Amino acid sequence: MKLTDISGDINEWFSGSGPLADVVISSRIRLARNLAGHKFLSRCSASERSAILKELRDVLMPLELGDKIFYISVDKAPVLDRSFLVERYLISRHHAEGRGPRGVVIAQREFFTAMINEEDHLRIQVLKAGLQLSQCAEQMNHIDDAIEQKVDYAFSPRYGYLTACPTNLGTGIRVSVMLHLPALKMTDQIEKFFNAARDMNLAVRGLFGEGTEAAGDFYQISNQATLGVSEADIISQFENAIIPDIAEYEKAARTLLLSKQLDVLDDKISRAMALLGNAHLISSQEALFLLSHLRMGINMHEYMGASTPAIKRLCTQSQQDDDTDKTGGVSIATINRLFMLTLPAHLQLNYGKPLDPTHRDILRAKIIRSELASG
Amino acid sequence: MKLTDISGDINEWFSGSGPLADVVISSRIRLARNLAGHKFLSRCSASERSAILKELRDVLMPLELGDKIFYISVDKAPVLDRSFLVERYLISRHHAEGRGPRGVVIAQREFFTAMINEEDHLRIQVLKAGLQLSQCAEQMNHIDDAIEQKVDYAFSPRYGYLTACPTNLGTGIRVSVMLHLPALKMTDQIEKFFNAARDMNLAVRGLFGEGTEAAGDFYQISNQATLGVSEADIISQFENAIIPDIAEYEKAARTLLLSKQLDVLDDKISRAMALLGNAHLISSQEALFLLSHLRMGINMHEYMGASTPAIKRLCTQSQQDDDTDKTGGVSIATINRLFMLTLPAHLQLNYGKPLDPTHRDILRAKIIRSELASG
Repeated sequence: MKLTDISGDINEWFSGSGPLADVVISSRIRLARNLAGHKFLSRCSASERSAILKELRDVLMPLELGDKIFYISVDKAPVLDRSFLVERYLISRHHAEGRGPRGVVIAQREFFTAMINEEDHLRIQVLKAGLQLSQCAEQMNHIDDAIEQKVDYAFSPRYGYLTACPTNLGTGIRVSVMLHLPALKMTDQIEKFFNAARDMNLAVRGLFGEGTEAAGDFYQISNQATLGVSEADIISQFENAIIPDIAEYEKAARTLLLSKQLDVLDDKISRAMALLGNAHLISSQEALFLLSHLRMGINMHEYMGASTPAIKRLCTQSQQDDDTDKTGGVSIATINRLFMLTLPAHLQLNYGKPLDPTHRDILRAKIIRSELASG
Repeated sequence: MKLTDISGDINEWFSGSGPLADVVISSRIRLARNLAGHKFLSRCSASERSAILKELRDVLMPLELGDKIFYISVDKAPVLDRSFLVERYLISRHHAEGRGPRGVVIAQREFFTAMINEEDHLRIQVLKAGLQLSQCAEQMNHIDDAIEQKVDYAFSPRYGYLTACPTNLGTGIRVSVMLHLPALKMTDQIEKFFNAARDMNLAVRGLFGEGTEAAGDFYQISNQATLGVSEADIISQFENAIIPDIAEYEKAARTLLLSKQLDVLDDKISRAMALLGNAHLISSQEALFLLSHLRMGINMHEYMGASTPAIKRLCTQSQQDDDTDKTGGVSIATINRLFMLTLPAHLQLNYGKPLDPTHRDILRAKIIRSELASG
């Protein structure tokens, strides 16, 4: 399989479906595991790393996941391919920029990926659209069991699964939920969300962004402690309390915009439509923020029946000036496609060769104009 | 005369006509004078200020200027009226915010205004569209002579005309030219312009802006020294060297945009059109910057025959979606009207009552959308 087989479209977990899909983009569970009988990676020679890579690859590739599985040799992949894998959350930035023999096993529909020789020997993640942490956990347990039948994990009766970094000790589980919180931002309440998350010892990061800056009002929230807390407790807390609460706050903020700040709301949506439909140069960062506003508008229309002048124009009218008979409006599928396809590595991979930043900005603007014009 | 007689339209010096009108908005000459036999204002009692005000008003009102002349009692005018006079460059901010008896004599077409009891007893200014400093000087000399026949100015054979601030000593003349330099900004060359101006001991300020920040790429450039330099020399230097040179640099930057940075140019113009035509909330500052880009586009079309896709759309196509048969495009007159009419005090004076900032932003956006839609 080539990356261009998947780079032209969105993946399953970014499809905009699943429970609470108007606020929750996706759910992710990640396990960190190390093989017994091998040193942690920081102390491994290149040949030891190769041995670990081979052993795990041989175990992972035959897994029955109900999907095609393929392997990418990360250390041999071109920079652009590695950036693409990072943009798609198939590998971490750390894995992309690491050293030595390493690779990733990926299910073609992208609900499953296993990084070999990242920080730990093995990091498996399961991703699903919307709030589906229990379903992620269930699938993860099957996969984890299947692997454990064939390898010995490093495990201590006292500490649980042993990991390179002590913060992952214990269950070795990290639970993350990707959220879209544009209304909390627009109503100046996003700081409250950050503070509440900090108080609960949760980590908040931006999605698609470099580092911790949120891009396009997308945030990734995850647990920090893994020692002394059961896997089931972490998942249940996220799925039944933390995430539904945040989603309620975001929806309350959307209601506030509709009831009290209609001008602010319509201004943001109208500007986003106007800029996306007319810009000739657009950065990835700006595109994410503008698409974020359209995504919120469409979701407010679909989930809350909102029909302000700007939302109505966005959701029901053709965006093409030269084809006034056409009806339709912009679909959430188009917005999701644009989110992914205009990320820098996606853009270049689909174009067929590397482009300098200015030419990326030109191409990005062109793709967006054309996709929005055709709904 | 009421202010609303003039607040609904642009004034003569902002008509976009005159020599070098694609770069030079207007020319202004200002004289500072004080009456012999009176103290400087900082040492005057309220009754002395009243005496000066009455004496000068009686001399100024009968002046024959070929236009209606009216008087506004600045100390008694409402705050909104004073802000309007500042926005229109009929009085200074210092005069608006001052204390004690003071007023302004204005020619209805606004080419002439005389502030009484600003920093000096009398400050006269003559304003004309485009680069017309000699014409300003000629008119100023007639007016100055006519006044001097009726009053005694404080004059020293050694220092020339005496002024409250030593920087105005000598000729008491200040020469200012208002420039529109969007392409120097867009091509990152505006700093060079600032540095060159500083080296020539010229002051650069923003136009329509609070303080020194340029708003909408408009800059006001003026001489700083008035002692030991002849009036004729200052004017000739501005009119024959400094301003034509700056205009050449700006035009070279426009040529550069057209030849090498077409995407940047079309991006700026397309974005400005899209935002002005679609925003529901817009600040005065943002409106100035966006209108500035349209002004440049129209001038590039009219003076340089430029016809990029965005400029063509701006200058020749109707901006109304629902009336595709109409041809026309946006005229420079419309842009100039919008520059003036969307300034905060203009907006409120024409609306008939004060508005809070959010409602100003809503009204401003509405006026702009409507004016642009009708060309």
